[in-house]
Amino acid sequence: METISINRSFGGTQGVYKHASTATGTEMTFAVYLPPQAEAPGAKLPILWYLSGLTCTHANVMEKGEYRRACAELGIIFICPDTSPRGDDVPDDGGYDFGKGAGFYVDATQAPWSQNFQMYSYITEELPGIIADNFPADMARQSITGHSMGGHGALTIALKNPGVFRSVSAFAPIASPLNCPWGHKALGGYLGVDQAGWRAYDSIALIEDGARLPEILVDQGAADNFLVEQLKPELLQAACEKAGIALTLRMQPGYDHSYYFISSFMDDHVRWHGARLI
Amino acid sequence: METISINRSFGGTQGVYKHASTATGTEMTFAVYLPPQAEAPGAKLPILWYLSGLTCTHANVMEKGEYRRACAELGIIFICPDTSPRGDDVPDDGGYDFGKGAGFYVDATQAPWSQNFQMYSYITEELPGIIADNFPADMARQSITGHSMGGHGALTIALKNPGVFRSVSAFAPIASPLNCPWGHKALGGYLGVDQAGWRAYDSIALIEDGARLPEILVDQGAADNFLVEQLKPELLQAACEKAGIALTLRMQPGYDHSYYFISSFMDDHVRWHGARLI
Repeated sequence: METISINRSFGGTQGVYKHASTATGTEMTFAVYLPPQAEAPGAKLPILWYLSGLTCTHANVMEKGEYRRACAELGIIFICPDTSPRGDDVPDDGGYDFGKGAGFYVDATQAPWSQNFQMYSYITEELPGIIADNFPADMARQSITGHSMGGHGALTIALKNPGVFRSVSAFAPIASPLNCPWGHKALGGYLGVDQAGWRAYDSIALIEDGARLPEILVDQGAADNFLVEQLKPELLQAACEKAGIALTLRMQPGYDHSYYFISSFMDDHVRWHGARLI
Repeated sequence: METISINRSFGGTQGVYKHASTATGTEMTFAVYLPPQAEAPGAKLPILWYLSGLTCTHANVMEKGEYRRACAELGIIFICPDTSPRGDDVPDDGGYDFGKGAGFYVDATQAPWSQNFQMYSYITEELPGIIADNFPADMARQSITGHSMGGHGALTIALKNPGVFRSVSAFAPIASPLNCPWGHKALGGYLGVDQAGWRAYDSIALIEDGARLPEILVDQGAADNFLVEQLKPELLQAACEKAGIALTLRMQPGYDHSYYFISSFMDDHVRWHGARLI
């Protein structure tokens, strides 16, 4: 692991790091905020993962997410992975919604994507190992959140890994790739045309197939341009009701899909996770 | 005035606007955060100006400054101007520290800069008129802050306009253009070689020449790369001591010149101004 930058912020340190990933076969960049409590000898602090949305790198939430104040106060490590492998040798698509910047947190099975787009394994196996080895992290206390495609990632990863995460929340998540154009393009490309294979990466299908979480917090902007066609929180709501999952879905009047929305409710999410992590 | 974008954030609205400026002879872009209190009928809210540093536009602090939470809570309008005129017809310099993105908040007297680089008049006369005409602003309650070149701008503008601002603060300000390479390059270019003309835009010289403020708050990163050569808060400290100005200069250990530093102390500054505005 190589350090790209370290900046003091809110009494802790915002770092950016890179490492050679075996999962993706590329260099991967990620950001970690260490709160001031990390400097105490022997510190082992809880972790909040944040998975970003389409087009984003680690940097978007790091610059605009406004998570550091609450993490510094509560003593939470905040981790921001990239959304896909990068590099000249990595295959790409002309669009913003497939290929680089759009890994969808799946392990691709279809050529040419399968060579590098192993983001599920990267996020759930490889990067946690890097974090455990290099930071004062208590891997028994992890929670996860994300935005849009990253909300989909947070929900599906939590549903597929029972017991790993103390809590899961999302900002304007893609509720069901099986039921939206973004999902059809990306999962069709990464996993092939047989939609049976997509069910392992669809929060609604996972719940239908028996996966459970005790509770989920979701904030959704009511003025989000992607709400009706792509995000469809009503599908998550119906699935959670049927399965007895306590979903708190907050429709936020006037808010759109941007970081102006995310940053407005980030503090709430950090504190909600903090109450379950600390 | 034309609206470029409006995003709901922290219960209020973050807007970006542009207008044809008579001071600069160009289109100028600026950002205004209106807190939720602005939506009340007949609202007249206090203003906090934030002047940005070298290379910045209105967008840097808007995206990374983390001012909206406190402004929303206290009911303060936050205004982010650009740092220079822009456009293909505006003269520029090859460097980052003179020309576009580096207006230094002066009225240039030297060709070719004098045609467009009238940032002092723009910030102190033209833009306040635009704000008063278009937003629910109480122009009797204004305060000002800024970063680096914008800290220089905030200090000099407050010193030159007694009674206009209830309070002034700065993040890592350039204390004295007369005494640093950035200042020599920029003021030499905009105002000519006769340094007598620079004294009207130098906080130390203004204080020496009799300008007074009741108090100033300054935060300065102790690990700021520009501290020794360019910023020189010790000059401001000495001038304030001699003049009886109550300067609170907080050297912040480990902090650099970035928005990771600014955002860490933005809340403090907004609240400090709020106590004097409300």
